[in-house]
Amino acid sequence: MAKLWGGRFSGETDKQVEQFTSSLHLDQKLWSADITASIAHCQMLKKQNIIPNDEAQKIIFALSEIHEEFTSGKTTVNLESEDIHSDIENKLKEKVGAISGKLHTARSRNDQVSTDTRLYLREENKKLLGEISELQKCILQIAENHCETILPGMTHMQHAQPVSLAHHLCAYFWMLSRDFDRLSQAQTRINILPLGSAALAGTGFPLDRQFVAKELNFSSVTPNSLDAVSDRDFVIEFLSDAAMLMMHLSRLSEEIILWSTPEFAFVELSDEVTTGSSIMPQKKNPDVAELIRGRVGIVYGNLMGALTMMKGLPLAYNRDMQEDKTFLFQGLETTTDCVRLMKLMLEKAKWNSDRMQQALAGDFSNATDLADYLVTRGMTFRQAHEVTGLVVQFCLQQHLALENITLAQLQKINPIFEETVLQVLPHQTVMKARTSEGGTSPLAVKKQLTLAYEYLQQSK
Amino acid sequence: MAKLWGGRFSGETDKQVEQFTSSLHLDQKLWSADITASIAHCQMLKKQNIIPNDEAQKIIFALSEIHEEFTSGKTTVNLESEDIHSDIENKLKEKVGAISGKLHTARSRNDQVSTDTRLYLREENKKLLGEISELQKCILQIAENHCETILPGMTHMQHAQPVSLAHHLCAYFWMLSRDFDRLSQAQTRINILPLGSAALAGTGFPLDRQFVAKELNFSSVTPNSLDAVSDRDFVIEFLSDAAMLMMHLSRLSEEIILWSTPEFAFVELSDEVTTGSSIMPQKKNPDVAELIRGRVGIVYGNLMGALTMMKGLPLAYNRDMQEDKTFLFQGLETTTDCVRLMKLMLEKAKWNSDRMQQALAGDFSNATDLADYLVTRGMTFRQAHEVTGLVVQFCLQQHLALENITLAQLQKINPIFEETVLQVLPHQTVMKARTSEGGTSPLAVKKQLTLAYEYLQQSK
Amino acid sequence: MAKLWGGRFSGETDKQVEQFTSSLHLDQKLWSADITASIAHCQMLKKQNIIPNDEAQKIIFALSEIHEEFTSGKTTVNLESEDIHSDIENKLKEKVGAISGKLHTARSRNDQVSTDTRLYLREENKKLLGEISELQKCILQIAENHCETILPGMTHMQHAQPVSLAHHLCAYFWMLSRDFDRLSQAQTRINILPLGSAALAGTGFPLDRQFVAKELNFSSVTPNSLDAVSDRDFVIEFLSDAAMLMMHLSRLSEEIILWSTPEFAFVELSDEVTTGSSIMPQKKNPDVAELIRGRVGIVYGNLMGALTMMKGLPLAYNRDMQEDKTFLFQGLETTTDCVRLMKLMLEKAKWNSDRMQQALAGDFSNATDLADYLVTRGMTFRQAHEVTGLVVQFCLQQHLALENITLAQLQKINPIFEETVLQVLPHQTVMKARTSEGGTSPLAVKKQLTLAYEYLQQSK
Amino acid sequence: MAKLWGGRFSGETDKQVEQFTSSLHLDQKLWSADITASIAHCQMLKKQNIIPNDEAQKIIFALSEIHEEFTSGKTTVNLESEDIHSDIENKLKEKVGAISGKLHTARSRNDQVSTDTRLYLREENKKLLGEISELQKCILQIAENHCETILPGMTHMQHAQPVSLAHHLCAYFWMLSRDFDRLSQAQTRINILPLGSAALAGTGFPLDRQFVAKELNFSSVTPNSLDAVSDRDFVIEFLSDAAMLMMHLSRLSEEIILWSTPEFAFVELSDEVTTGSSIMPQKKNPDVAELIRGRVGIVYGNLMGALTMMKGLPLAYNRDMQEDKTFLFQGLETTTDCVRLMKLMLEKAKWNSDRMQQALAGDFSNATDLADYLVTRGMTFRQAHEVTGLVVQFCLQQHLALENITLAQLQKINPIFEETVLQVLPHQTVMKARTSEGGTSPLAVKKQLTLAYEYLQQSK
Repeated sequence: MAKLWGGRFSGETDKQVEQFTSSLHLDQKLWSADITASIAHCQMLKKQNIIPNDEAQKIIFALSEIHEEFTSGKTTVNLESEDIHSDIENKLKEKVGAISGKLHTARSRNDQVSTDTRLYLREENKKLLGEISELQKCILQIAENHCETILPGMTHMQHAQPVSLAHHLCAYFWMLSRDFDRLSQAQTRINILPLGSAALAGTGFPLDRQFVAKELNFSSVTPNSLDAVSDRDFVIEFLSDAAMLMMHLSRLSEEIILWSTPEFAFVELSDEVTTGSSIMPQKKNPDVAELIRGRVGIVYGNLMGALTMMKGLPLAYNRDMQEDKTFLFQGLETTTDCVRLMKLMLEKAKWNSDRMQQALAGDFSNATDLADYLVTRGMTFRQAHEVTGLVVQFCLQQHLALENITLAQLQKINPIFEETVLQVLPHQTVMKARTSEGGTSPLAVKKQLTLAYEYLQQSK
Repeated sequence: MAKLWGGRFSGETDKQVEQFTSSLHLDQKLWSADITASIAHCQMLKKQNIIPNDEAQKIIFALSEIHEEFTSGKTTVNLESEDIHSDIENKLKEKVGAISGKLHTARSRNDQVSTDTRLYLREENKKLLGEISELQKCILQIAENHCETILPGMTHMQHAQPVSLAHHLCAYFWMLSRDFDRLSQAQTRINILPLGSAALAGTGFPLDRQFVAKELNFSSVTPNSLDAVSDRDFVIEFLSDAAMLMMHLSRLSEEIILWSTPEFAFVELSDEVTTGSSIMPQKKNPDVAELIRGRVGIVYGNLMGALTMMKGLPLAYNRDMQEDKTFLFQGLETTTDCVRLMKLMLEKAKWNSDRMQQALAGDFSNATDLADYLVTRGMTFRQAHEVTGLVVQFCLQQHLALENITLAQLQKINPIFEETVLQVLPHQTVMKARTSEGGTSPLAVKKQLTLAYEYLQQSK
Repeated sequence: MAKLWGGRFSGETDKQVEQFTSSLHLDQKLWSADITASIAHCQMLKKQNIIPNDEAQKIIFALSEIHEEFTSGKTTVNLESEDIHSDIENKLKEKVGAISGKLHTARSRNDQVSTDTRLYLREENKKLLGEISELQKCILQIAENHCETILPGMTHMQHAQPVSLAHHLCAYFWMLSRDFDRLSQAQTRINILPLGSAALAGTGFPLDRQFVAKELNFSSVTPNSLDAVSDRDFVIEFLSDAAMLMMHLSRLSEEIILWSTPEFAFVELSDEVTTGSSIMPQKKNPDVAELIRGRVGIVYGNLMGALTMMKGLPLAYNRDMQEDKTFLFQGLETTTDCVRLMKLMLEKAKWNSDRMQQALAGDFSNATDLADYLVTRGMTFRQAHEVTGLVVQFCLQQHLALENITLAQLQKINPIFEETVLQVLPHQTVMKARTSEGGTSPLAVKKQLTLAYEYLQQSK
Repeated sequence: MAKLWGGRFSGETDKQVEQFTSSLHLDQKLWSADITASIAHCQMLKKQNIIPNDEAQKIIFALSEIHEEFTSGKTTVNLESEDIHSDIENKLKEKVGAISGKLHTARSRNDQVSTDTRLYLREENKKLLGEISELQKCILQIAENHCETILPGMTHMQHAQPVSLAHHLCAYFWMLSRDFDRLSQAQTRINILPLGSAALAGTGFPLDRQFVAKELNFSSVTPNSLDAVSDRDFVIEFLSDAAMLMMHLSRLSEEIILWSTPEFAFVELSDEVTTGSSIMPQKKNPDVAELIRGRVGIVYGNLMGALTMMKGLPLAYNRDMQEDKTFLFQGLETTTDCVRLMKLMLEKAKWNSDRMQQALAGDFSNATDLADYLVTRGMTFRQAHEVTGLVVQFCLQQHLALENITLAQLQKINPIFEETVLQVLPHQTVMKARTSEGGTSPLAVKKQLTLAYEYLQQSK
């Protein structure tokens, strides 16, 4: 393949070197972005009279044709091209001959590849944001049906206090909303046009960079050409946000896996998202959840890789930066897939409210409320705990669930107890009592759901 | 020390376990935040009549006293306390006796520690933002004096095109502005109040969380109690942003180190920020730059550590999360120090414009402009390159710098050249010709500086 | 403090810079190693007549005194020293006056600090190896008592086949043996003497490096001075091995945490290693296990940090490398503590064999053996699975545990079944049948234990 | 495609789930290892009479045929297979019908995939070790010709003392020898047979695992079946070693890049391994070196990803572990390519000894030797430095290189100087004087080269 920089070099590039330095296996994903950006660039060159009208028209027309040919499958990337830019320039040359060279006026591959990557990522990030919203909706739909479904709320993986399934799942809604916010803000830093920075220093041609930005729907242009061609923050920021998102999904996956054990059995995943054993009917392997949890490693690795790549690089463009696409594309695809599959898994899951309820029996996760009852009756926090301790000890000796204790038994321990105490002990009541803002009571959760739907509405 | 959860446990905690689980060496930094948050919590308990007026007053007064005693050095952390919360509660008890226990009504250490950390980080992040602005200002001040100072702009560490020192340094201004933006946006996610989420499920006490938020200048309250006590996104997001910031500083450090070599000698660092050898006078070790570059590893490590810690953790609070402070405090301090020291180093540096200028002599970084000249005279990009190639080859044979070629010599190679060609060849002219938006010409850089000052103005 | 490199520098070092560049907070741990190495160096200088006998004697005597004073607490590090080397040199000067300067003949801080760190790490690594062996012994002691204790062996966190607790715990024995092997092999690369490499290029003094190596029990000397002063592989290799070790501990911790849930209840941790709630008696928070799991992040972070620090550093010594101690010391201490605490936690844990046994009831983890039974009777693997599938389906319809099915019921499904089939179905039998090398049967496990004890014997 | 676990599952696997969970795009690399391991397994089943002789023969013959068909390109992986194991089992079934099912007796995909990966990695690691040796040889060949070529030895990137190019390059030889040692030791932990561990618990079939190990040249068998199927240490250890190796290459790359700048110009890379500009003749972009430096990020990322994946996973096999191949294959290929390309780059490079020599002129890197001269004449280290300081100051005032000072000038400063002093000052002499073991003098370097060749000899 003709190389863009060939010229007066005497030695041939070594075959192994060609392979080693080629970026085509990665950047071929950018074909559409590359053509789109070239069309806008050419329109600007025409408008500014940098290249003649008719030649510009021919180039633009040919580029549109190439785009169509890619879309329809009539053409594909020539795997011997050095990179996607060469590939498309070669295709253009076949169509319009020598004037194809004019397209490269006032730009370089350094600003071109950054423009292409930003265009590509902008669109893919939009899709990811869409998938996040879908997953959030899915969570809310499940939550709406489970405001009164109770299960043990855990700290240190020990039963702490009963919570509703709605409340539990909504925790993930809010994690995802932070992911959504971060990725949206990253989008504003992705969506800036580097084209016009040329190799590193700008150019003397009378460009109209704002025009190109407008054509390509970029919100602004980069203010410094050296920074523009050597900045990969937009890749790293995306990967940071993706890493946190994947971390959230790993937590939810962990819970799905735990809840799928026979010991918990809080959830049953559908056959569509599990594998099994032909003879062990109970064995429904939560593969999707496991793979999501495992793939968090891919995205963490991509983030760390991109940060490492950029460490200590002097200005401006260095070839090291070519690897940004290795990290970005792998991280992007992994994350988007995981969000989509998480939704698929959740929306088909069956929630065993019976098992959740049973798990609470006799677990003393209502003891705090007994102490709170005593506080409301005037005891200090410390006294209340002492008395509650005595009650719990009594229950343990009698193999009695706290929710089954009688008033007489309580009064024997301390005369302060009155009939009303029995109303605070059932787990359902305990859960319903947590009425504070952001708490687990159905009332509070309903307000939370309203906030959540408002969030979804605004994030459209 | 009395433990907050002691109670009816029969076995004593093992001494080694106490040491292993203690967080005091970390969380003692939070003493001020802890007291401040407790005062606001108590004011709310009073306002809501959850604890009696007079008792609340006593507690608040005593807490203020403790704060003053810490500030004045009259009291210090008791190193045998389990954590900072216990430490302050013990001090409170000494002052007000048993009613100290009422302060803990309707809260738990789970929401308390998150509140403290957010308060602390909010203030420290503000300081970091301030340091970034200072560094940015310092860069602009240097840049203003060097719009016409030229040096070789590099790609692949090879001379590519001459740029101005102002333009070069401003690249770092814009990196820092992205850091500033990211950290500012992180601040909005740090500045949310978790207090009132209690252990994990909220509480039945009639809290006014909005009141507490207002008292403490939080912009809102967390919407889900389970998420609130188990969310460490604000730590990880901060560390992500800090990692990128450190990456930028590592790049600038690398350049300072390179430019301090005798081979480059573009910059001379001041004695205050270097170490030397008593007998090797030329040896000014750029230690500060090296340490900044090396410490990027600390912050990358902290980010990776925090992400690892959170991977796969089920809801809600798990003790693992205690380590968030290990990562946060080390990352925070390292980053803030590095920003401050970078400024110190830059503001005292001497820029050797002579050496920069000399480095350009005969480096053919003006050849692109010869080609551009030919394009403006009607040649295609490819033809222009061919002719330029011939000129360059001629210069090489004659050991002639391109900027010293004569018109006659040029015309011998190709008659298209006219007198005006000689004006485009000096490196200074080449630099000045890059007038496109964001380019390196002094005109363009001045516009860039205006944008930069506007940015600083707005980011106050 | 007097600086070793002071000399003719005119400007004073900035106070902030001093603080920023100081390594004393880290390298003060090296005081003993530093003195020990200096004594050996001085003995060699004496032996080689590089410094006079009597002066050498005085220096050696004084250094021994300083070592004793440190040990007995008579002296401590002066916190205003630049680093531990200066600190000790200053103390030496106080004792012997100007001749103290001769100690630094033919060495530099570059080879000195590497020597000190290697000496220190060698001893600490020995301790860590010892702790690993202790933990391994503890595992074997538990295993010996539980060769017949069965519990559900899991894949995908689903019951797969019954295994013995001994077999389960021994899996961790072998992980730890790999850690032990790796750290032992790392030791051979730690235990090499860099002293004598001087600043970077060696020296003209007639050193006897082999003598120093022998004095300090190093197994060999570094073969290249440039590499010697800029090599931090021994730190990174240690951290890699520590990261894997911590990963293993995180897995065991995860299981301890899971098994401590009321849903599993396979293990009960002792009061000494847990925290609890005064009123929730069931709540025994497995803090130690959680912190071990969380602290894996610290060591991963240290590894990543050290790798980042070294990326792209040119030869030879660069100041960046000073941070090796930040990563090493944190990683070393964290890992050693976690190994020790894991042992403490395990040795006091109670294993609930009843709960483990109960968990197997009706879980079909014996179905594979039914199929294997059919294979031994001549069916192909696929046919056997089909018939087993029918049996399982029958059990499900009848709400019957597979281990409770009758021969008549089986024969109704397929006449191939004979009386002996009933013997293969109990979970205990299923476990005992896995007699292959490395399998879970008590017989195989006993052989495994023999291998394990042999390993321990050899690794002393 | 027929699924191995299909059976009585009612729901179909979702198409997206199939794609998400498929590992074929990764594990198809294992086709040869998978067939080889299956043949050995089948031979053992035959020998132990677990399956009939004639059926085993048929299976073995068919598997050999399939292997040949893959090799010759007659068959390829069916891209709709679930994984490589299914793919080959399907091909086997086509050839031998139902008896193909017997091959899977007494094994599971859990032990099978681990066996395949270990076999594959063992062979690839051998190749990598070979490439390392080649690179080491290449370094020695260059070094042999440059024992007297001097260049500035740097610390803090400042001229410190002159060293020979041979000595400088040999530093990398020794780094690579540590890499070689680590990877060789890793090999002993890779080369252990897990087959026979079955799904997780071993099997009741009378296996002869030692026989299989012997057939496949494994040095031993795994001692614990649970560990065997859930151990990925061999992947992580390989990646740790690869990360350090890449770190070394990144350092050498950095130096190559620096030395290729016009400011240094110590090396000129060949056209075969660089890209250039058609009109900037001096611009030889060291792309290969840059890409090696950048790709260190890939391997660091793979290591971090694999460590993350394994964090906190309970026993035994979890689906997360499937991703081991993502990390391993990318890390393996990247590392091997980089070692090979580094050699290609080095062996064709031209070393500009003139430029190296010139760089030393007047750089005072000989001042240490002046001080050492004074020490040998009886001064203390500190006095000698003081006098040297005065000499240096004099030179600076007179714009005189230290190597050009006269005896008279020296004696004016201090009468201690004698004629012999002039002999110690030339840089060449300075370099030659560093005769200590591991030092830079040609004599010492020749001993070093002997050691290096011995190392290469032993590591064959």
